[in-house]
Amino acid sequence: MPTAVTGPEIDRLIQLLARLPGLGPRSARRAALHLIKKREALMTPLAGALQVAIDRIRVCETCGNIDTRSPCTVCTDARRDPSIIVVVADVADLWALERAGATNGFYHVLGATLSPLDGVGPQDLTIDALVSRAHDPRVAEIVLALNATVDGQTTAHYITDLLGDANVKVTRLAHGVPVGGELDYLDEGTLSAAMRQRTLF
Amino acid sequence: MPTAVTGPEIDRLIQLLARLPGLGPRSARRAALHLIKKREALMTPLAGALQVAIDRIRVCETCGNIDTRSPCTVCTDARRDPSIIVVVADVADLWALERAGATNGFYHVLGATLSPLDGVGPQDLTIDALVSRAHDPRVAEIVLALNATVDGQTTAHYITDLLGDANVKVTRLAHGVPVGGELDYLDEGTLSAAMRQRTLF
Ligand SMILES: [Zn+2]
Ligand SMILES: [Zn+2]
Repeated sequence: MPTAVTGPEIDRLIQLLARLPGLGPRSARRAALHLIKKREALMTPLAGALQVAIDRIRVCETCGNIDTRSPCTVCTDARRDPSIIVVVADVADLWALERAGATNGFYHVLGATLSPLDGVGPQDLTIDALVSRAHDPRVAEIVLALNATVDGQTTAHYITDLLGDANVKVTRLAHGVPVGGELDYLDEGTLSAAMRQRTLF
Repeated sequence: MPTAVTGPEIDRLIQLLARLPGLGPRSARRAALHLIKKREALMTPLAGALQVAIDRIRVCETCGNIDTRSPCTVCTDARRDPSIIVVVADVADLWALERAGATNGFYHVLGATLSPLDGVGPQDLTIDALVSRAHDPRVAEIVLALNATVDGQTTAHYITDLLGDANVKVTRLAHGVPVGGELDYLDEGTLSAAMRQRTLF
């Protein structure tokens, strides 16, 4: 029935919007209507921004970040500390760490975490490139900023083994109470880790 | 910080995506990354679909529906019953009724509901055009398919008064138990209405 009412052009727009993470069929319809109503203010600028992204965005050959140039803005930032490489699974994690201002180091985006159940093996990740970068004599520390999930920790162990003959310290993010977090909502593993790693007040 | 990492092109894409209903800043970032990763499969088709919509979509001059032609597909459908006009606040409501196959009549999209608190008055709705259509001698019934909210019912009363000298029956959607709905989750007003309007089994 929607085809009969709205025509194939709007149907196609809705179907494509519904493939964005966070938008289901219902919210994709609402988004399409919103775009059509805001043709000048939103739909035209969005079409333009997508075309710019299509034309200009690329993956950084060094770290895997997404940018309009390769090497990317991070990799060419001379103020960063070349002794630290922070390993993340996804570009979204790199962005999150940058928003937090959490590190002054460089990054390495794996592209995924190892997940035997989903058929994701080492060859699907940029692990070879990471090992190669770890042998750069300027690099002293590899920070594994991976999810505290089974897959994340499997990946962390796998990488740690491979880095055994590189002259680097391998570290990982601390476990603990989230800032603003309430203790009685935290799982026991986190609470135990936070207690073990307690710091001077 | 995001600008330093991702550059203004991606920032702009994220900001525009964040203005879609249903997407906040966080999900807009995820959507942007997803689009960039699926450049050929999703970002390019979506940019194309938006451009097609920009070029071809228009508002139907008769009913207010959105289509690639005016009068729209619904208004030019000779199989529909010209004695019925179903009044809705928004195109999304028209689409929902069509998906449900709820009516074989024509539609009239008001564009909004009256909302004195939000400064939405009769001049902001397509009420004049509706009154004009209601005087077409083929029209026998105006169905007010408006939200069962204060604003929706205010709008329904306002329109009913204006249609006093048109030779039409003015009806509204029934209240009742939603299909699949559980009684003990329904408010008392709905339950009372469903009891009053009970039908033979
Ligand atoms: Zn880079
Ligand atoms: Zn129409």
